[in-house]
Amino acid sequence: MSDETRSPGRFVTLEGGEGAGKSSQIPHVAETLRARGHEVVVTREPGGTALGEAVRGVLMNEYDVPMPAMSELLLMFAARAAHLEQVIEPALARGTWVVCDRFTDASYAYQGAARQLGDDAVATLEQLVQNDRRPDHVLLFDLPVTDGLARAGRRGEGNRFDRETVAFHERVRAAYRTRAAADPARYHVIDAAQPPATVRARIEAAIAAWPA
Amino acid sequence: MSDETRSPGRFVTLEGGEGAGKSSQIPHVAETLRARGHEVVVTREPGGTALGEAVRGVLMNEYDVPMPAMSELLLMFAARAAHLEQVIEPALARGTWVVCDRFTDASYAYQGAARQLGDDAVATLEQLVQNDRRPDHVLLFDLPVTDGLARAGRRGEGNRFDRETVAFHERVRAAYRTRAAADPARYHVIDAAQPPATVRARIEAAIAAWPA
Ligand SMILES: Nc1ncnc2c1ncn2[C@@H]1O[C@H](COP(=O)(O)OP(=O)(O)O)[C@@H](O)[C@H]1O
Ligand SMILES: Nc1ncnc2c1ncn2[C@@H]1O[C@H](COP(=O)(O)OP(=O)(O)O)[C@@H](O)[C@H]1O
Ligand SMILES: [Mg+2]
Ligand SMILES: [Mg+2]
Repeated sequence: MSDETRSPGRFVTLEGGEGAGKSSQIPHVAETLRARGHEVVVTREPGGTALGEAVRGVLMNEYDVPMPAMSELLLMFAARAAHLEQVIEPALARGTWVVCDRFTDASYAYQGAARQLGDDAVATLEQLVQNDRRPDHVLLFDLPVTDGLARAGRRGEGNRFDRETVAFHERVRAAYRTRAAADPARYHVIDAAQPPATVRARIEAAIAAWPA
Repeated sequence: MSDETRSPGRFVTLEGGEGAGKSSQIPHVAETLRARGHEVVVTREPGGTALGEAVRGVLMNEYDVPMPAMSELLLMFAARAAHLEQVIEPALARGTWVVCDRFTDASYAYQGAARQLGDDAVATLEQLVQNDRRPDHVLLFDLPVTDGLARAGRRGEGNRFDRETVAFHERVRAAYRTRAAADPARYHVIDAAQPPATVRARIEAAIAAWPA
């Protein structure tokens, strides 16, 4: 197929709380798509660009005074604007699929719901930064909060989010599930409490069901 | 006057292009206000908090790919949200005047006008981050672009903005002047091409004319 007639790539995101298995499974998502003949780039938020990695450093740092939730949200979208312009949109335009570890659903779940800024603040920035761009497919890794936190704890490297309360992470989980329930054509909830091989199989089944 | 009856402080900003003399004159603005009996804190944007200084580092850095204008705007407002919550609002609430080297007028001039994101994008973020907070008094340091750039060049330390084209800085100047003309009660245009002693005298005259 020539570049001129190639259809645009699709935008696939992996979402879910800490320790859900997103980073473990993302190579398998990419391999499954490649086996179906797609070119794939794998990326993550915040990050994916030099600016994004610099912003990740600012976000993950600990300050003398806690960072306002609104600053956290704006930093996420500052990185996202560069990620879209420099990585995601060019890849999609040349027919490459983009598989991204977290995207704007995480802003709704973490800053909108868990930090209680509200959906409207997130929606305002989503419109400003993304225009009409939304993920074509969202794989939501869902599991009980305490299971995810126990896994993340065993993984070692803590961050500002891992140290939030269980109630905080319950708000994250509930927000993700509410968003998935509202748009079942775009969201695929994966039972992330299952063993890795089962999760892999469920991912393959979800992908096989996507329209060509 | 007891804390309970003290009137809130006022929010004073210094605006203008590179080399206009803002940083040189800000101590004199603060001294003039202190001589009138006010408590004063002096601060700057981006900066004024630990987060703001970290964001200043991200903004002033040079990347392999130029930073999108929208990222620049969002980073400015991420720092501003912390600056408002941690420094500006607490000071104003306890009756202290805040004198700030640049604020949201600079976002309109630099990102809205010069980088051509448009006023609406800036206004959306201004509303999201500031609610009703606006400077009570803006001292706009106005001078021909080439004069300001020549001064900034002599000062030495260049940054990403100093190296922009003259046309870019002309858009900055025009945007500032348009904003000042639209709200003459709040904006005070200072002829910054005058020698320092004259600029000082004009600042004192402007402050003396502010309502008690
Ligand atoms: N299905 C699974 N069952 C048990 N442990 C898992 C599973 N998936 C991932 N893990 C482990 O849980 C920890 C967190 O997984 P990770 O992929 O980093 O999660 P996330 O990226 O969603 O935070 C890792 O130590 C990983 O090996
Ligand atoms: N009124 C003035 N006349 C001549 N030079 C000035 C005047 N005000 C400031 N300068 C010089 O111009 C340079 C830029 O001044 P500065 O206060 O740093 O500007 P800004 O903070 O607005 O960029 C400095 O070297 C300063 O000494
Ligand atoms: Mg991960
Ligand atoms: Mg200065």
